Amino acid sequence: MGSQDVHQEVDAVAEDIATMETRGAATIARAVVDALATQAEASDAESPAAFVAEMRAAAQTLHDTRPTAVSLPNALRFVFRQMDGESVEQLRASAVAAADRFRSQLERAQDDLGRIGANRLRDGDTVMTHCHSTDALACVEAAVEQGKELSAIVKETRPRNQGHITAAALREMDVPVTLVVDSAARRYLDEADHVLVGADSIAADGSVINKIGTSGLAVLARERGVPIMTAAQTIKLHPATLTGHTVEIEMRDESEVISEQDRSDVGELEVLNPAFDVTPPRYMDAIVTERGQFPPESIVTLMRDMFGEGTDDPWETDDF
Amino acid sequence: MGSQDVHQEVDAVAEDIATMETRGAATIARAVVDALATQAEASDAESPAAFVAEMRAAAQTLHDTRPTAVSLPNALRFVFRQMDGESVEQLRASAVAAADRFRSQLERAQDDLGRIGANRLRDGDTVMTHCHSTDALACVEAAVEQGKELSAIVKETRPRNQGHITAAALREMDVPVTLVVDSAARRYLDEADHVLVGADSIAADGSVINKIGTSGLAVLARERGVPIMTAAQTIKLHPATLTGHTVEIEMRDESEVISEQDRSDVGELEVLNPAFDVTPPRYMDAIVTERGQFPPESIVTLMRDMFGEGTDDPWETDDF
Amino acid sequence: MGSQDVHQEVDAVAEDIATMETRGAATIARAVVDALATQAEASDAESPAAFVAEMRAAAQTLHDTRPTAVSLPNALRFVFRQMDGESVEQLRASAVAAADRFRSQLERAQDDLGRIGANRLRDGDTVMTHCHSTDALACVEAAVEQGKELSAIVKETRPRNQGHITAAALREMDVPVTLVVDSAARRYLDEADHVLVGADSIAADGSVINKIGTSGLAVLARERGVPIMTAAQTIKLHPATLTGHTVEIEMRDESEVISEQDRSDVGELEVLNPAFDVTPPRYMDAIVTERGQFPPESIVTLMRDMFGEGTDDPWETDDF
Amino acid sequence: MGSQDVHQEVDAVAEDIATMETRGAATIARAVVDALATQAEASDAESPAAFVAEMRAAAQTLHDTRPTAVSLPNALRFVFRQMDGESVEQLRASAVAAADRFRSQLERAQDDLGRIGANRLRDGDTVMTHCHSTDALACVEAAVEQGKELSAIVKETRPRNQGHITAAALREMDVPVTLVVDSAARRYLDEADHVLVGADSIAADGSVINKIGTSGLAVLARERGVPIMTAAQTIKLHPATLTGHTVEIEMRDESEVISEQDRSDVGELEVLNPAFDVTPPRYMDAIVTERGQFPPESIVTLMRDMFGEGTDDPWETDDF
Amino acid sequence: MGSQDVHQEVDAVAEDIATMETRGAATIARAVVDALATQAEASDAESPAAFVAEMRAAAQTLHDTRPTAVSLPNALRFVFRQMDGESVEQLRASAVAAADRFRSQLERAQDDLGRIGANRLRDGDTVMTHCHSTDALACVEAAVEQGKELSAIVKETRPRNQGHITAAALREMDVPVTLVVDSAARRYLDEADHVLVGADSIAADGSVINKIGTSGLAVLARERGVPIMTAAQTIKLHPATLTGHTVEIEMRDESEVISEQDRSDVGELEVLNPAFDVTPPRYMDAIVTERGQFPPESIVTLMRDMFGEGTDDPWETDDF
Amino acid sequence: MGSQDVHQEVDAVAEDIATMETRGAATIARAVVDALATQAEASDAESPAAFVAEMRAAAQTLHDTRPTAVSLPNALRFVFRQMDGESVEQLRASAVAAADRFRSQLERAQDDLGRIGANRLRDGDTVMTHCHSTDALACVEAAVEQGKELSAIVKETRPRNQGHITAAALREMDVPVTLVVDSAARRYLDEADHVLVGADSIAADGSVINKIGTSGLAVLARERGVPIMTAAQTIKLHPATLTGHTVEIEMRDESEVISEQDRSDVGELEVLNPAFDVTPPRYMDAIVTERGQFPPESIVTLMRDMFGEGTDDPWETDDF
Repeated sequence: MGSQDVHQEVDAVAEDIATMETRGAATIARAVVDALATQAEASDAESPAAFVAEMRAAAQTLHDTRPTAVSLPNALRFVFRQMDGESVEQLRASAVAAADRFRSQLERAQDDLGRIGANRLRDGDTVMTHCHSTDALACVEAAVEQGKELSAIVKETRPRNQGHITAAALREMDVPVTLVVDSAARRYLDEADHVLVGADSIAADGSVINKIGTSGLAVLARERGVPIMTAAQTIKLHPATLTGHTVEIEMRDESEVISEQDRSDVGELEVLNPAFDVTPPRYMDAIVTERGQFPPESIVTLMRDMFGEGTDDPWETDDF
Repeated sequence: MGSQDVHQEVDAVAEDIATMETRGAATIARAVVDALATQAEASDAESPAAFVAEMRAAAQTLHDTRPTAVSLPNALRFVFRQMDGESVEQLRASAVAAADRFRSQLERAQDDLGRIGANRLRDGDTVMTHCHSTDALACVEAAVEQGKELSAIVKETRPRNQGHITAAALREMDVPVTLVVDSAARRYLDEADHVLVGADSIAADGSVINKIGTSGLAVLARERGVPIMTAAQTIKLHPATLTGHTVEIEMRDESEVISEQDRSDVGELEVLNPAFDVTPPRYMDAIVTERGQFPPESIVTLMRDMFGEGTDDPWETDDF
Repeated sequence: MGSQDVHQEVDAVAEDIATMETRGAATIARAVVDALATQAEASDAESPAAFVAEMRAAAQTLHDTRPTAVSLPNALRFVFRQMDGESVEQLRASAVAAADRFRSQLERAQDDLGRIGANRLRDGDTVMTHCHSTDALACVEAAVEQGKELSAIVKETRPRNQGHITAAALREMDVPVTLVVDSAARRYLDEADHVLVGADSIAADGSVINKIGTSGLAVLARERGVPIMTAAQTIKLHPATLTGHTVEIEMRDESEVISEQDRSDVGELEVLNPAFDVTPPRYMDAIVTERGQFPPESIVTLMRDMFGEGTDDPWETDDF
Repeated sequence: MGSQDVHQEVDAVAEDIATMETRGAATIARAVVDALATQAEASDAESPAAFVAEMRAAAQTLHDTRPTAVSLPNALRFVFRQMDGESVEQLRASAVAAADRFRSQLERAQDDLGRIGANRLRDGDTVMTHCHSTDALACVEAAVEQGKELSAIVKETRPRNQGHITAAALREMDVPVTLVVDSAARRYLDEADHVLVGADSIAADGSVINKIGTSGLAVLARERGVPIMTAAQTIKLHPATLTGHTVEIEMRDESEVISEQDRSDVGELEVLNPAFDVTPPRYMDAIVTERGQFPPESIVTLMRDMFGEGTDDPWETDDF
Repeated sequence: MGSQDVHQEVDAVAEDIATMETRGAATIARAVVDALATQAEASDAESPAAFVAEMRAAAQTLHDTRPTAVSLPNALRFVFRQMDGESVEQLRASAVAAADRFRSQLERAQDDLGRIGANRLRDGDTVMTHCHSTDALACVEAAVEQGKELSAIVKETRPRNQGHITAAALREMDVPVTLVVDSAARRYLDEADHVLVGADSIAADGSVINKIGTSGLAVLARERGVPIMTAAQTIKLHPATLTGHTVEIEMRDESEVISEQDRSDVGELEVLNPAFDVTPPRYMDAIVTERGQFPPESIVTLMRDMFGEGTDDPWETDDF
Repeated sequence: MGSQDVHQEVDAVAEDIATMETRGAATIARAVVDALATQAEASDAESPAAFVAEMRAAAQTLHDTRPTAVSLPNALRFVFRQMDGESVEQLRASAVAAADRFRSQLERAQDDLGRIGANRLRDGDTVMTHCHSTDALACVEAAVEQGKELSAIVKETRPRNQGHITAAALREMDVPVTLVVDSAARRYLDEADHVLVGADSIAADGSVINKIGTSGLAVLARERGVPIMTAAQTIKLHPATLTGHTVEIEMRDESEVISEQDRSDVGELEVLNPAFDVTPPRYMDAIVTERGQFPPESIVTLMRDMFGEGTDDPWETDDF
């Protein structure tokens, strides 16, 4: 089967992901299942094998755009696991139904997660945040909706100052915000009741991969006796890590860290700007997902429930 | 005695300190002893008591400019402790001699300290720095002069990016520099052999008061197994802390942290911008001074050697 | 359906629980399933829907007596999960059978748990206890029956001195007992081979909610290198915590802490007398249940096995 | 049924295990299923009950040789769990098929495990080893085959110097090896990226039972910030520990520790030479098996998946 | 010289100390120097040697009453160190003057200490206390006099409930008090800014010997990130510990722990009731004395300043 | 002055030190002062300057033999510090007297140290040892002489098995000995009341340089809650470390670690065999010297008392 069988909508979605037009774990996941559904609906394959081949080609196209975006293969895997049937029609229907199910679960996932995380927050608590995570914010929002009064200490989160976005979102919820530089974390942990972060992805060994600075914050939170939780939907679970794979850390542009001018003033200089770091499970108190809260050391059981032991990509195997 | 007896040079020095024209612990200390020497030389006091009274008035004037600058009272105290005599001439001579001695000690203090700190660094080591400290840099410089090849990981040190100054100074010494955001400290501690910081002041309980972020860095260094040392001349020792006084932490302007524009975009917001934090002695491996290296827990003995037990300001007492 | 359809036996049981006539997790659980069985047996409902409605009303009545007693909803949930059928008779039979099964499991649970806990104890060991827990004592008793010679260090457990009850029970088993005040725990941990406590309830994040003082004892046990285990039947697992709910801590009367006389001697005074505290999982080595031993971080998987992900109370939902 | 019904091959295998002619967890396991298959194939039992009785007798014979060798009962259990049927022929066929399946799984287990462990190792890493473990070596070998350049620091592992065997095996793979005495571990952990050990067995509470010195190495690795992993096939999981049983530690001959001559030079002396020690789960970062990697705290869920809750030996029960 | 030469006042003081009529470190110390002064004043010795012999006999008499009361030998030592002269009159005068000096230093010691300790407390702080210590209370009192508003969490301190005395004293100062059982310490440390304890004695290795429970509280304070300080006058420094002697811990009557009635209800029982425990220096942040604050690890230098290296009792030696 | 002025006895002593004929810190120190005394006595210098020059030459000769042996420069320094006078005779007499004083102090140092260390050991205690140290053994011996019954767990201390020497020495004192391999330390720490080690040298930052394995043992002792002390005479204090110098670690021959035969069996191999490692002060509870016990963090004050701040070698300077 030639790549011409991949629907142009799939190519468009792939293009948008590749150029980062489409961003964010949930947005990417949704776009991907939409594209698969479109491919399934539009297919004029004449045999089940041909249909599956087309779907695999589409999946492969989508997958190749950003192989390190954890939600992307998870979304593909979700659809393929539920695609089943003896005829093209059955396969098509099951694929479309799977896409629907995925969307509907995704839609309520953040709300569910928010309510679960909110249950950990008590009226009057102060929450320290790092970076910007809508999953983390969903917990605060749900707590506020439950009538709890919260306040927040927001770390600005250099180099891109996502703390400002978090601060603005919290102000929208009428949560009082104190902004501090990242270095002030230990000083202000004394006044925090919780540290609340999101995740880029979560590994089978319970490690949390999140914005650079998270692991240091977690160590300091433990030292200061402040509980720390990660809010992350299950699309962030990283099945490849079940087999020991480590998560690749993106190295970002140095211009985020230092301006051209400052740089040339300083002289020859290496700038290292990793996007994420890895927080070991022993420094994290809980991972809050839409399917309940988990000690990090137990997240592997949720991953095995969801993805089984094997981690071969279903679009690359013959297991139909 | 009226304040008119305070020499105009003293007033000028006081003014410069108050307006922060004169800055930096060593610069202030030198200016202060110069002013006292001028006062002593120019005095036309007709009795020892009058001379002492004038000197006290000058000291008081100088002291009142920045009571929290630890080197300032230390410099005053140094001169008063050595001012002695039965006549105006003897008093004058002893004061001028004390000022000379202080200057000469101060002059070699940083070099001595640098050599001592350098002895802790081995050829090939990588040093992580926080903020900008000429005492800390003196250690690196001395090591480089001893022929050791060092490299450095420089934290940018928000909000004022003094890391850029440190980076430039290290580049002057031909030390390769890697610049990272403050949040990347834990990630790059794995590649550091030492953490090297300066101090704003050092308390009798061994606490190091230094640029905000130092205490968090020290906790992370301990967690990662990287030794951390403070380089600080003895003018940074804070005698008031012998009697339990805690060091006041300056709160700086919020405009250092967030621009007017970003601030108004975010909405109503408190910004807390403490200049320093306090690192407990158990997280610091050594304090390097020009009089040798000390475990933080023993710095109290050096302080008692230098300042005795009493901490009354000599210009306020009658102990002559 | 009116509340008159709730059997008077149910009301009587509810009353006894509310007045704390009926106390203790297992006793409450047994009373509750007995009441449900009575309700089922005595029902003259004419339709399955009516039968279920009656059972729900009974469950609701029972549940409302002490919503924080964790074994109570667990017992109700057990029966409802197994109540099934197309006819009133089938529903009745399944409910009664479920009640029987619950009772029989409950009956052997403590023995099973005791044997499992006993397997962790070696001949010659000394066990430190806190408060009074029949689950914990069952472990000692089983070990003694296996012919192991144990001795015990019993903390008196202020304010209600349940240590005395524990001491008496241990003396019944011929276990030599040393009684110490709570403050002596760290001193005598050097002579203990195990710390053994019960639980009021156990949360999904592996936290153990138990008599005030348990969390401090656990921290000290870790510092002294003494393993600590919680003995708790699965009726103590707190399913609401799967969704992040924190367990409410009962605040008890101040008269337990200080006598009227002493109080008036001291003067105006606040007395805080929480019944329980929360031990984080990282300070607990094992949770021993009748279904095996678990690292605290894994207890969530047992809870999900037993209660699923959803935690809606079955008597409040339409999921039949 | 008399013991004469046990096939002579079973007796021979049992003898070889008892005399330690047959050694090593995998070798024993394979020998045991081979023996069971032979027993099944050669049986002339005339009834299913007689067949099962013979199989039980064979299993019992094999089991009694080294009851503490964890792979032995696991292998027996595997075959019994899958032995099923209404007739002798069905039982025989299922037993033989189970034996085949076990062998084939065992065959690929180490390779699978090796690949999973290899995924944790990055190009350029240095691995510190303790004792000799083919599972651990399989991880290095797989990494080398993936083209990663690794080097190794090998602890000699007194008293039997299995480090020499490990060193030789690593040299075979062209991995550069540095040999150090056991006491040098903390010194050289600074230069290691991973500690990699095997296991004699793994307990339900996540403890790793391995060559004496492992637990100390694990504590030091944590102190130095070096991750440590255990490589162990699932035949090492110790189901008895699900019910709290502790693993018996073999005490080996003192002649391994000190020569006759040295001993008599020293004078009267007790020598204690335990073969293994117990590493608590909180000091181990991951357990790598052929079924994925697990935080030690979660290994209990894998054990329950594989062995259920009950831990009765199937050859001793009537559960057919 | 016969013991008849010991003044009857000395015997009376000795009697009062022995019967614990005279209690408390400062009260004993004062009584002892008073007695020595009386002995010196009333002596009719005819030679310096006879005078010294009498003084030694008096000292020996006093010392033998409670050899473990650390302030007693310190007081004797103070007088003997300053007793000097060629004639009886000179010796007498110097002894009396030494006694005066001791009394006057003792008189202001608690005030000085209080001010130093108060400097560590900030307005609005909450202090957790253990047992009853007038030195600790002096810190709170001085802080209150400086206009700081403090509140207190008072542990009742079983078995003798000295917390009630502390509570009453704090109420006298208008400090709001919350009373908790000892087991609630970890729970309420979250709401404390300082832990403040006294000391029975302080050892050269920086260990603090204080009421049973202090060491556990210190461990918990460190775990919770709350600084802890000991307030203790220098008469509590234990010079014998300079030479490695450990401090003997008094074992008190079991009737303090359990009533006759409860005891006989429980059955045969050992009760262990140590008065004190030993807090290692690494768990204590500062020791506040009237001569300044010290990290515990540095208190040895103060002890050597005050007592030299030798620790022979001057009344037993010939070093005059 | 030519080197012919160095006495032949000095050359002989130097030779014996260089060839390690003369070994051991105390033996070297004594030989060195003997040699200086001989030089002084035999000198026929005709002027004070010539005498001093000869003494310097002798000192230099001795010093150059093993510059890293810490007791050697300490011994030289002791004599030079006390050598004083206006004439050759005065200089000679003072040098000889200093040598006598040094010898006499050295003679009693180990006994004094032993008694101080013994005071830390209680009747019935079990002591774990590493390597062989006569200072450490002196503590045990003194305790035994005080009538305390001790027992010992002796680590064999690869690669040279100095544990056997220690074991033999303890058996001489009738102390029961259990010998274990180094890897068994953590296992048997549970049965030890103290860890007792010697030192090769002690640094100003409180670090203990001792036989490889000491630092790991110290970390494990802290983890297991067992106090650890270093027994070391003050000749082991390393004055160069006052100015930050690190102590050079001797790398010993690989033949100590592996036999020629084993080595060639294994294949190409690097063997690293450092003689010592560095234990940070935070893992050591006390340093016991003949001048009292010290927290490691305070040893710097003893070093400054004994050696001052300057660390120039007196035989190289003109400070007479």
